[in-house]
This record gives sequence, structure tokens and C-alpha cells, in this order.
Amino acid sequence: MTRERIYLAGPDVFLPDAIEIGNNKKALCQHYGFVGLFPFDNEVGPSLSGEPLDHLIYRENIAMIRQADLAIINLTPFRGPSADVGSVFELGFAHGLGKPVFGYTNVTSDLVERVAEHCPGLRMDADGLWRDEDGMSVENFGNADNLMIDACLSGAGRPLIRVPVARSERYRDLRGFEECLRLADRELRGPLRRAS
Amino acid sequence: MTRERIYLAGPDVFLPDAIEIGNNKKALCQHYGFVGLFPFDNEVGPSLSGEPLDHLIYRENIAMIRQADLAIINLTPFRGPSADVGSVFELGFAHGLGKPVFGYTNVTSDLVERVAEHCPGLRMDADGLWRDEDGMSVENFGNADNLMIDACLSGAGRPLIRVPVARSERYRDLRGFEECLRLADRELRGPLRRAS
Repeated sequence: MTRERIYLAGPDVFLPDAIEIGNNKKALCQHYGFVGLFPFDNEVGPSLSGEPLDHLIYRENIAMIRQADLAIINLTPFRGPSADVGSVFELGFAHGLGKPVFGYTNVTSDLVERVAEHCPGLRMDADGLWRDEDGMSVENFGNADNLMIDACLSGAGRPLIRVPVARSERYRDLRGFEECLRLADRELRGPLRRAS
Repeated sequence: MTRERIYLAGPDVFLPDAIEIGNNKKALCQHYGFVGLFPFDNEVGPSLSGEPLDHLIYRENIAMIRQADLAIINLTPFRGPSADVGSVFELGFAHGLGKPVFGYTNVTSDLVERVAEHCPGLRMDADGLWRDEDGMSVENFGNADNLMIDACLSGAGRPLIRVPVARSERYRDLRGFEECLRLADRELRGPLRRAS
């Protein structure tokens, strides 16, 4: 049996113990019959070709996403109200390639709540829209993040999984990740799939 | 002659005068012989089908990107050190579809400088990596944003354009946008193209 390959995106790559977290994710993938592909960021040696390191990492990650059969994206807010932009780029890229994408966040609040924390000057305009100090409106659809992210997932029947996690474990807790593995297993191998 | 269609991504859609900014961008596109497609966010009427508004906006924007021949993405930092995640999703999606993508930012600083402003607890670890209060490392490649964004553009020979803009005009100044139009014009119709 061929095991589907999953690209494992997320700000996890920035953790001091990124390689350990990556190995934990790969072990969970294996438990569910998948092969996990962890981003290249922390596995780079010296560049023999003289290619700049950031270009090398980019090229390897893009190649890994192309090889993958699906992707699971860690969309936990990162240095601001929204998800890590590197992970969001990979979400969009994988979706553009037509790969099934799953996502989770270890923060349960709606986007608008986190923008309110981040922008103390938030106020409601005459049309009932929240606006920040630059006058920029804040989406208020009950989503976890920008609508392009939430709707990309939920529109394909794959809800963005939100898990309540203690602040100290925000970038390490893997319950949301495991729930995505269960969703992927059900979608790719479940009774609906088998019947089709 | 067929005029190439450009998808115009950016947090511009959140401005109170988003439609006016969109019209200004479309006029510049026309000046350079392109047709600008501005995101659907502010042009939605009542949903007759009962489809949730965020899903409707998502679906229309995705359809517009598919129709477009290329995209220009406003990557100006938005509510934090990095670009608007909705725009970054669209950058990744357009790249996944194989469309040429161009990008600009109205802030000239490197990512690491903005993370330092945003995270007062930033410090250098024993390996010479900047780490924030969560211990998460900060990329320091001299890029404007996460390497997946910068390298996606520069790796294809399309540098991320950085323009110094006054704070008050950050989300309205269109010089970087116009520079992207010039780059697109040169790439799609320039002497190199004609000679091939």
C-alpha cells in the first residue's frame, strides 16, 4: 500500500527544538499510515553551490509540497493576530496545486477578538464595521483568521480545527494536528471514499 | 490585442475608500495596457443564494485569480511585522497556479527590524540566532518578510519592490504598485520577450 505523503507546515520550524517537534509530527503521521514531510528549514547544511541559504530552503520546501499528496498547516497566530505568513503562503500554494489542505490553530478566539487586543484604537463606524487606527476594517465573520484562510478549508468540507491550549504550549501542542490527521484519514480512506 | 488581466491583491480592500483605491489601481493598469481585477470584497450585494458572505467573497476572489494572467500583491506589513495573510494566501495560490506574481511593500525595513520593534524581548542565542520571548527564531536573511515570500518573487527574477512611504500614506501610495506594472510590462512585452 502506498502511504500518502503529508507536507507539515507551521511556525514550528522556528522552535529551538524544531527537529524534535518535526519528529513527533512524523511519528503521528506514521501512526495514521501517512508519511510526514517536515520543512527543510532546519536540515540545511552548508550550501555547496553558493546558492543563498534562503533560496535553497525555499526551493526545497516548494519541491516537498509538490511531492506531497496533501498538507496540514499549523495556523496558530504568530507575532500578531494572524497566522505565520510562511505557512499561509504554503497553504495557498498547496491549494493552487490542487492538494487537499487541512489546518489547525492552538488559539480558539475569533480574528476580530485578537485584532481588538492588538489594536487598542479599534472602534465601530457608522456602518457597523470595526475599524483600526488606520481606518482599515476588520473582518467579522466569526472566523479564526482572514476569510481566505478559513473559507479555503471550510469550503472544501475541512473545518479549521481550533484547540484551547495553554500559552506555554501554544507552538508545541499536537492535538489539533492529530485531529487533522484523523480528518485526512477519514476523507482519504473512510466509508464515503470506499463507496465511491 | 489582448490585454493581460492582473489580479490586484492587498490589504487595500480594508480601506474606507477601498473602491476608489481599486479604481486608481485599475486606471494605472489601463495606462500600462493591462486590465486590473480588484478583489470582490467591497462589491458584494446581498447574497441571494443564502451563501455566507465570506464564502461568496472567497469564491469570487479565487475565480478572479484563476481568470487573471498575472498578479500584483501589496505586501506592506499589516497589523504586525508581516504582510496581510489574505494577500499572502493569494500570492501562494497564484504561484501554485503558475501565474507570474509581482509584489511591493510600502515599508523598506527588513523583517528582523520589524520583529525587534514588535517583540521587545528579542535576544541573540549562543548560535547567533535572534529569538523572541517564545524562543522562536527570527529569519535574518535581509529579506522584507518571511523567506517563502521574498524567494518566491526574487527566485523568479521579480524582486520584492520596497518603497519608502510616509506612515499616513502607507496603504494608499501606489509608486511600488506602478513599479510592478513596469516590471510586468518589461517581462511580458520587453525586448527579451520579443526576441524569444
